[in-house]
Amino acid sequence: MAVITKVSPLAPKAFPDLPVIKGVRFATAAAGVKYQGRTDVMLAVADAGSSVAGVFTKSATRAAPVLDCQDKIGKSSDAGVAILVNSGNANAFTGKYGGASVEAITSAVAASTDMPAERVFTSSTGVIGEPLPHDRVIAVIDELNSALSENALEDAARAIMTTDTYAKGAAAVVETPAGPVNIAGIAKGSGMIAPDMATMLVYIFTDAKIEQSVLQQMISSITDQTFNCITVDSDTSTSDTLLAVATGASGIVIAEADKAFSDALNSVMLELAHLVVRDGEGATKFVEINVSGAANDADAKTHAMAIANSPLIKTAIAGEDPNWGRVVMAIGKSGAAADRDRLSISFGDILVAKEGWVADDYREEDGANYMKSDHIVLNIDVGIGDGKSIVWTCDLTHGYIEINADYRS
Amino acid sequence: MAVITKVSPLAPKAFPDLPVIKGVRFATAAAGVKYQGRTDVMLAVADAGSSVAGVFTKSATRAAPVLDCQDKIGKSSDAGVAILVNSGNANAFTGKYGGASVEAITSAVAASTDMPAERVFTSSTGVIGEPLPHDRVIAVIDELNSALSENALEDAARAIMTTDTYAKGAAAVVETPAGPVNIAGIAKGSGMIAPDMATMLVYIFTDAKIEQSVLQQMISSITDQTFNCITVDSDTSTSDTLLAVATGASGIVIAEADKAFSDALNSVMLELAHLVVRDGEGATKFVEINVSGAANDADAKTHAMAIANSPLIKTAIAGEDPNWGRVVMAIGKSGAAADRDRLSISFGDILVAKEGWVADDYREEDGANYMKSDHIVLNIDVGIGDGKSIVWTCDLTHGYIEINADYRS
Repeated sequence: MAVITKVSPLAPKAFPDLPVIKGVRFATAAAGVKYQGRTDVMLAVADAGSSVAGVFTKSATRAAPVLDCQDKIGKSSDAGVAILVNSGNANAFTGKYGGASVEAITSAVAASTDMPAERVFTSSTGVIGEPLPHDRVIAVIDELNSALSENALEDAARAIMTTDTYAKGAAAVVETPAGPVNIAGIAKGSGMIAPDMATMLVYIFTDAKIEQSVLQQMISSITDQTFNCITVDSDTSTSDTLLAVATGASGIVIAEADKAFSDALNSVMLELAHLVVRDGEGATKFVEINVSGAANDADAKTHAMAIANSPLIKTAIAGEDPNWGRVVMAIGKSGAAADRDRLSISFGDILVAKEGWVADDYREEDGANYMKSDHIVLNIDVGIGDGKSIVWTCDLTHGYIEINADYRS
Repeated sequence: MAVITKVSPLAPKAFPDLPVIKGVRFATAAAGVKYQGRTDVMLAVADAGSSVAGVFTKSATRAAPVLDCQDKIGKSSDAGVAILVNSGNANAFTGKYGGASVEAITSAVAASTDMPAERVFTSSTGVIGEPLPHDRVIAVIDELNSALSENALEDAARAIMTTDTYAKGAAAVVETPAGPVNIAGIAKGSGMIAPDMATMLVYIFTDAKIEQSVLQQMISSITDQTFNCITVDSDTSTSDTLLAVATGASGIVIAEADKAFSDALNSVMLELAHLVVRDGEGATKFVEINVSGAANDADAKTHAMAIANSPLIKTAIAGEDPNWGRVVMAIGKSGAAADRDRLSISFGDILVAKEGWVADDYREEDGANYMKSDHIVLNIDVGIGDGKSIVWTCDLTHGYIEINADYRS
């Protein structure tokens, strides 16, 4: 594996202060699954009465742990919840051994934590197609279980990293008439990221009390506006998993209609999604694609994703080239409705093109100057309807090639 | 524009000897549209009685010359055919000026060649969104018309190049009971290449006598198996154009059912398509993706294109990494039907994975050794049906980033 020594230039200055989420504890260990000299396994254990919901990759070649999680999610239970994650090996395309590894690990976690196996969820992330040395994971489970702490969520964020150049966390507090409710989440991911459940691994915890079906509905809906609106390289992982656990330890019940809680959860998930893009492999620019005026919202997203995934646009942004002609190209190829002569394009606030032609007062040096920023906003008005969509991506640089041309060696 | 000094390592050793196609003549000139010190305009004039057929980009933001060609193609006429092509500027997204430039150029060509304007076809290739300085093109038309020669098809191939690192030509001779018929073609293109009429500019000439509707049916059908099966970067040009001219000068009539001629035309178009991939921006490997056993042919092509367009696979190939896990990922994300446990993958003749697991006798060093070749064949058997598809692509390297991060500056 290529050694990544440089932190993304788009990384936040520091890992945020995450609030303690009552009712769930964490521990990490260095099991040596693949990496040396770092933690690579994390265990989270939530108290009895917790609810858990999940969103998973739509890949037809899903990894064994994903299939296992999907089998278990949504079943009602009064037991607690355990989540075990390893990095370094994805346990994907590992045939019958894949399922056996999941079975071995979940049984060991269940025994150690005194939890029914159907409440033990696992994820694996890293190389595809190599057998998971699950004995190494199992060897550290008792150690993990005896080290559980309310304060180890940041450590957990570090243990699940693969090509990530920094750990990712986000949090929010919701003030309710009955008192505050806390939400905290962690994520990993920087490549092989594209919509259709566009994430990597994401774990979100709250001390609110939420029925499983309500929690599931909330995260499914918010995923569509957050993780499903980001792309680094148009590739979709076989392991994408988001799990949300509501411990209920605050004693405060959140009902389906609670907008304040839903907004706070949205902010945590959007922040985590942006953190993943900011750690896009080789990224030097964070890019927002804002499409309006499409025939409908679905068309707007098709246009936005065509722009966000275009290698020609992503390389132009890397080169700080205000090459709006390539934006026209991407709109044209996307397959969604467009009319060349009603299209307007702005880079930030700079109107570059309108009605099928370069804008009268556009000056190339203004565009070139704008492109020097590390936060680029492309505003596209298709000019034919009310459909809109925002997606986020990063540029395509030599760094991406370096990281991915030699990942396994 | 980035100066490309190095010829693609996948380039053929020399431009092929193209046969003279009786009934059509060519000329080139240096009009200074954008490039200095090279030819950038070519004119082809075919005799009265020629038929002409065309295939064009499906982009919703098609360039003005494409719209003009589409208006004209398919109308019957006894007049000759003129084709004028400039490089350096695509005359795309140039608003009302775009159509005016086409009108000015076609009128000038019609006057100079004594041809009706509806038999004058033009193409422009290069930068999008900048007005075409058509006066510079018009200034060389009389010079071109007086220099027409049967022997200048190779010169024409050079005049239409943009980021191409070599000129592209291919030819075939068909022996018929009445004597030989010749086919010769030229193409340009190395980036912004993807299916849905996946070409750049292609011009094919034959001295056979073929009715327009027969010629059109043949090139439309063959395009689906050739130019629509290649991809460099998944981006689709606004200017893609293929024109085929049958002069009839051999006096030999080709009817719809002529398999020998159709096969020869297929071989010329396939060779030109491969030449474009071999000149893919930054390419160091020519890659064939051969999918069989899919639910149907359309699914097979969906899988094949998902593999061919995956940045993770293209960078792994660049890094000579036999990373078959990424092939599993691409099959999984493509959206077409797949069953992880019935999937087999071979790199060339080396069976790497079968039935959801690495093949028993696969040795990593064999895979790594195979990847050193500059001609890589990925064979994927989906294992669930009879659908098959072959597509061709190239790897994704630092060279692609270099060429495209600084194209306009």
